[in-house]
Amino acid sequence: MAPDGPDPRRRGSLTERYPGLDVLVDEPPNAQTAARSNLATPITPRDEHFVRVHHRTPEIDADEWTVSLAGLVEDEAELSMEELRCAFPTESVVHTMECSGNGRTYFEPDAEGDQWSFGAVGNAVWTGTPMSAVLDEYGGATDDGLWLSAMGGEAPPDKDVFCRSIPLAKVREDCLLAYEMNGAPMAPEHGYPVRLVVPGWFGNNSVKWVEEIRVMDGMVEGEAWTDRDGQDYTQYQQSSYRIVPDQDEQPDRHRSVDTVSTYDQMTEDEGVRNAYLFDQLVKSLLTTPEDGATLSGPRIELSGVAWSGEDAVERVEVSTDGGESWDEATFVGPDLGRYALDRFRYVWEPEPGEHTLCSRATDERGRTQPATVSDPEDELRGIENDEFPWNVKGYGNNAYRPLGVTVEVEA
Amino acid sequence: MAPDGPDPRRRGSLTERYPGLDVLVDEPPNAQTAARSNLATPITPRDEHFVRVHHRTPEIDADEWTVSLAGLVEDEAELSMEELRCAFPTESVVHTMECSGNGRTYFEPDAEGDQWSFGAVGNAVWTGTPMSAVLDEYGGATDDGLWLSAMGGEAPPDKDVFCRSIPLAKVREDCLLAYEMNGAPMAPEHGYPVRLVVPGWFGNNSVKWVEEIRVMDGMVEGEAWTDRDGQDYTQYQQSSYRIVPDQDEQPDRHRSVDTVSTYDQMTEDEGVRNAYLFDQLVKSLLTTPEDGATLSGPRIELSGVAWSGEDAVERVEVSTDGGESWDEATFVGPDLGRYALDRFRYVWEPEPGEHTLCSRATDERGRTQPATVSDPEDELRGIENDEFPWNVKGYGNNAYRPLGVTVEVEA
Repeated sequence: MAPDGPDPRRRGSLTERYPGLDVLVDEPPNAQTAARSNLATPITPRDEHFVRVHHRTPEIDADEWTVSLAGLVEDEAELSMEELRCAFPTESVVHTMECSGNGRTYFEPDAEGDQWSFGAVGNAVWTGTPMSAVLDEYGGATDDGLWLSAMGGEAPPDKDVFCRSIPLAKVREDCLLAYEMNGAPMAPEHGYPVRLVVPGWFGNNSVKWVEEIRVMDGMVEGEAWTDRDGQDYTQYQQSSYRIVPDQDEQPDRHRSVDTVSTYDQMTEDEGVRNAYLFDQLVKSLLTTPEDGATLSGPRIELSGVAWSGEDAVERVEVSTDGGESWDEATFVGPDLGRYALDRFRYVWEPEPGEHTLCSRATDERGRTQPATVSDPEDELRGIENDEFPWNVKGYGNNAYRPLGVTVEVEA
Repeated sequence: MAPDGPDPRRRGSLTERYPGLDVLVDEPPNAQTAARSNLATPITPRDEHFVRVHHRTPEIDADEWTVSLAGLVEDEAELSMEELRCAFPTESVVHTMECSGNGRTYFEPDAEGDQWSFGAVGNAVWTGTPMSAVLDEYGGATDDGLWLSAMGGEAPPDKDVFCRSIPLAKVREDCLLAYEMNGAPMAPEHGYPVRLVVPGWFGNNSVKWVEEIRVMDGMVEGEAWTDRDGQDYTQYQQSSYRIVPDQDEQPDRHRSVDTVSTYDQMTEDEGVRNAYLFDQLVKSLLTTPEDGATLSGPRIELSGVAWSGEDAVERVEVSTDGGESWDEATFVGPDLGRYALDRFRYVWEPEPGEHTLCSRATDERGRTQPATVSDPEDELRGIENDEFPWNVKGYGNNAYRPLGVTVEVEA
């Protein structure tokens, strides 16, 4: 028996239910954090956490819902929510989840899709059953190079099914079948009653309303998956959520890739041409002051947040001249773990006038944020020369410009 | 310059401003968390964190506010908020703050004061300037046995001033002059613009609206403090916030005490007779299910939270028969540090019928929750024979009975 979930009959517009969000599209619901300062909260409240839905938010009776476990397992299974909750251990992870389309609005010319600015990111505590425990219980295969595909209950019969393939090694390391967000049942828009949470990876990997999980010897690819019971399961794995320069046709489809680091896929010479959006890129954002603020005083405190997917953020620098010069910021606790954002602050002694402020984070592997997004004609597919590659769907933008803020300091 | 604070002109009843709280008294504002499940949130949102005000909530212009540093320091000082924020390092701590009156309503007969049940406790991230940095900057004395008294800006001219004396060793170890709660300026009711946060100690020690901090060779005591400029600064240190059995007169006033552990003061034979409310006691609470719930299913997950002031919680046990028998619960992360509450869960396989559920935490020193509150006639002053001492003001109740819940399990 699960505790009472959110009332699926609960109605009202997205704006009414999520007063802290700016709504981009009402149906399907897509909304981002409205204020930079909301992201300064160490744990993003559920109603300030971005919402991104492709088709619709399903209405699910958790008492009836099951998750099918299939594929390379000794015993297939249908797991009820009661079983997931009570027959396995419970774990929590603090995960800064970013939508891969976050920052798309800073592309010039516009990229396809909803024009997210900075707010499609949130830092929540996800609680649920470790995938490794479920796989162990049912004799899941453990060979190197296997994948697990998770399929969500979102798609109406005539639509592409939301399905993502995750390397089994990652799944076994830290993924959860989560049923709580910040200590309470998650809202329908966040995946109620159960969501695969893939810590440190772009939000698209954290499949909502999980219906089926299948251990496989590759990603969803090929005819069996492009037309499975009349629906396409490969769209969100093989076509969407890839870094595709303007000049490319449809990206090549792969059964497997050697690296799951999005950054490495974008920068290595060999391997897959169009990176899959897996591990998040290093990024940061000033949360105070707000853009357009008028400030005064001999010293002004700037503060912000930084994250880097699976990796630790090692350093954050702040520029008060639009990126010409940089100075190091200091971190402020608490330490919420390696998948959680870090907060930083910087004390600025400004001259009067107009200033453009931005921040730049560098992760423990020395990877840093580029300055801008490239011109589409450059046909970049990786991060080069301080530029993030313009791509057709506007994914992965971690450039610090023009993500910063412009403020006026009074004399 | 500090970021914009809460609008001091913001009006509306306490209920409107704190929709997650149950209001005990509207003026002065006193309100506790309304639902057990609110406490399951890893970080208590600001508007679900209890509010306890003695006289009134002052309206403060942060740009004009200063904190006086005085007493045994080389240089006295008047610190502006800009100075506190920008001239010193910034630190954060996750602190489970409990009002010492929490649980008072379970006293029989009633104790004096507002009848808090379980909700005068919250777990927030407090951010500010380490007191040690301020003291070092102005040459604060460091001798053993000194105290620091913090005075709040709450009292109208004819009222007792809220002043608390904290041992300097504790102050230098981990206390903050906090200006943010959960990454944003705190609400007026929580101490805006600046609050002394004493991690792990009962809320009364975390003086709000701090006006003066003074390094002294003892606690506030004696004529200079009972009548300082016509006001009494000793009331909340020497008379209130003491464990006083029904048979005692006014407790003896002390310049100093050897132990700051509330528990140790309550249990040691020598020393102070009426314990001062400093370090919090070990305590736990079921957050799910709610009291009175009707449940069904072969397995039911119970969950809750536990905390123990400065000490780590080592074990939580759950009873489903009102305290007759106990079984160990498991902890669920994330680990938010030693001053933060821990979440636990327990899977129960119930028989149909009515059941009384409760939890009992034990800290790393082996101290545990007693079963009940004693009869006033027993004149207990410590925790003995599984009983917490009934005391005149109803402080410190950490008994697990009748803090539990009664539920009905359907066949």
